[in-house]
Amino acid sequence: MNALTQVAGYWMDLTGIFAFAMSGAFVAVRKNFGVFGVLLLAEGAGLGGGLFRDLVIGVVPVAFTDCGYYLMPVAAALVVFFSSRVHRHSGVLAVIDVCDTAALALFGVTGAVKALGHDFSWPSAVALGVASAVGGGILSSVLAMEVPSSLRWEQDLYVLPAVTGAGSAILLDAFGVLNGVTAPCAAVPAFGLGLLATRHRWR
Amino acid sequence: MNALTQVAGYWMDLTGIFAFAMSGAFVAVRKNFGVFGVLLLAEGAGLGGGLFRDLVIGVVPVAFTDCGYYLMPVAAALVVFFSSRVHRHSGVLAVIDVCDTAALALFGVTGAVKALGHDFSWPSAVALGVASAVGGGILSSVLAMEVPSSLRWEQDLYVLPAVTGAGSAILLDAFGVLNGVTAPCAAVPAFGLGLLATRHRWR
Amino acid sequence: MNALTQVAGYWMDLTGIFAFAMSGAFVAVRKNFGVFGVLLLAEGAGLGGGLFRDLVIGVVPVAFTDCGYYLMPVAAALVVFFSSRVHRHSGVLAVIDVCDTAALALFGVTGAVKALGHDFSWPSAVALGVASAVGGGILSSVLAMEVPSSLRWEQDLYVLPAVTGAGSAILLDAFGVLNGVTAPCAAVPAFGLGLLATRHRWR
Repeated sequence: MNALTQVAGYWMDLTGIFAFAMSGAFVAVRKNFGVFGVLLLAEGAGLGGGLFRDLVIGVVPVAFTDCGYYLMPVAAALVVFFSSRVHRHSGVLAVIDVCDTAALALFGVTGAVKALGHDFSWPSAVALGVASAVGGGILSSVLAMEVPSSLRWEQDLYVLPAVTGAGSAILLDAFGVLNGVTAPCAAVPAFGLGLLATRHRWR
Repeated sequence: MNALTQVAGYWMDLTGIFAFAMSGAFVAVRKNFGVFGVLLLAEGAGLGGGLFRDLVIGVVPVAFTDCGYYLMPVAAALVVFFSSRVHRHSGVLAVIDVCDTAALALFGVTGAVKALGHDFSWPSAVALGVASAVGGGILSSVLAMEVPSSLRWEQDLYVLPAVTGAGSAILLDAFGVLNGVTAPCAAVPAFGLGLLATRHRWR
Repeated sequence: MNALTQVAGYWMDLTGIFAFAMSGAFVAVRKNFGVFGVLLLAEGAGLGGGLFRDLVIGVVPVAFTDCGYYLMPVAAALVVFFSSRVHRHSGVLAVIDVCDTAALALFGVTGAVKALGHDFSWPSAVALGVASAVGGGILSSVLAMEVPSSLRWEQDLYVLPAVTGAGSAILLDAFGVLNGVTAPCAAVPAFGLGLLATRHRWR
């Protein structure tokens, strides 16, 4: 991985973390949690997947070493906390869904790229990419005592953007063209597929 | 540990993973989860305990490095998914219970052996063996929002095969006769005790 | 860190583990869990936070290497198990609450000290201190299928002793006076603040 890939990966991670943290904070507000509860669910949803990925890879989790990573969920929690009146507007939920789809695609790519950079085989890289993408949402659901939405049968394609993103990153790497420009691009078709799946209710 | 022990441990692990993954997939089907939900619960139940063991030991989890480990739960999920009509037959549940008992015994042995191989003391090795045996079931229960059955008071001896298996492995090691032939044998009395406990409803 | 700091940290950890394990065992008894369930919840509540801290730092979790660490929850579980008649006395719950507050303060300090000793930055050290303090309680709540009490809005300042403890340790370190005598002292104001918050129902 060159420097550009790392910078691109960094910003993709932060964007994804912010989107996931928004979802987590929403769940906490809906459940009437306190300030600490909203913060913890935002942190859990935003950082949980990446934390799992880093523990498996065997590096110190970036969630605890980079300020940007743990301040992002704080920002998301504040946004959600101080806009609670807006939440009733149903349009907000749709926006959250779109952000979640984007975050799944981004995490699928960055997770797979990081795993490849640490000499994991490609099936493991796909698995780690998907795990890092769905991990945060599952953690925050479990903390809020809800069945993770990704497990329900109506949500079968929730995982599609993550799988597509991770798969695209693997393909780019196989052709030797994975770099700081193509990595973010790998997330685009994954995001598009995810949107299509949501809109047309593919199952 | 010599090569034979490793091969024996490998096959014991795979057998145990398959049995645990069947249980996890059953829970998912009972809860009406989708394809991804069944897969995730099968993977979680099959690999969760070993993942925890490997993270504690400080090695890259074998669940993410060896194809056999993550394909086993996929196979178990497929078997459960495409045999859902058979599930109503009460005999199936009994078979699952027997498989679970065997898997607990096998994981107790392999977890303890792996911990000993990484210079853990014997009480730690027993604890890690038991944790690796019960971890997967607990993880899949939590993901499905059920109280893990191993915690309920009617199930007090659920953990018996794991403790016996881990203890037998420790004993064999203390006498210097732990190898690829005796390790699987250590699982046999553990399995037998577990079956007796289930049959006679020991508490 | 000198030897004195380590000894002080060791006893602070053990005290905190015992207090948390009592809480965990109480939850298990209230939920009618069996012997294994009480043991597991005591171990989870007592060791969960430190286990998470050690995995993030990247060292072999002390919970699996030091006998004292895993025997402490066993002792707590036995105390709770064989005193179940006393539980109805409402005074017991108040004692448990005070012990929990003390444990939060102690874990906040020891978590932050351990993180600083492994070259984490101070915000990360605070985050790890807090995570190690609240982690065990959250784990045992999730295993018992209850919403972790630290997340509820009535409990907003549950986390206060942990934050104050971690923050005091950081300050002591910044002034170069963190040692085996001042570290336990850092827990005292945190404990006091926590008691005040509980008594006056600060929110």
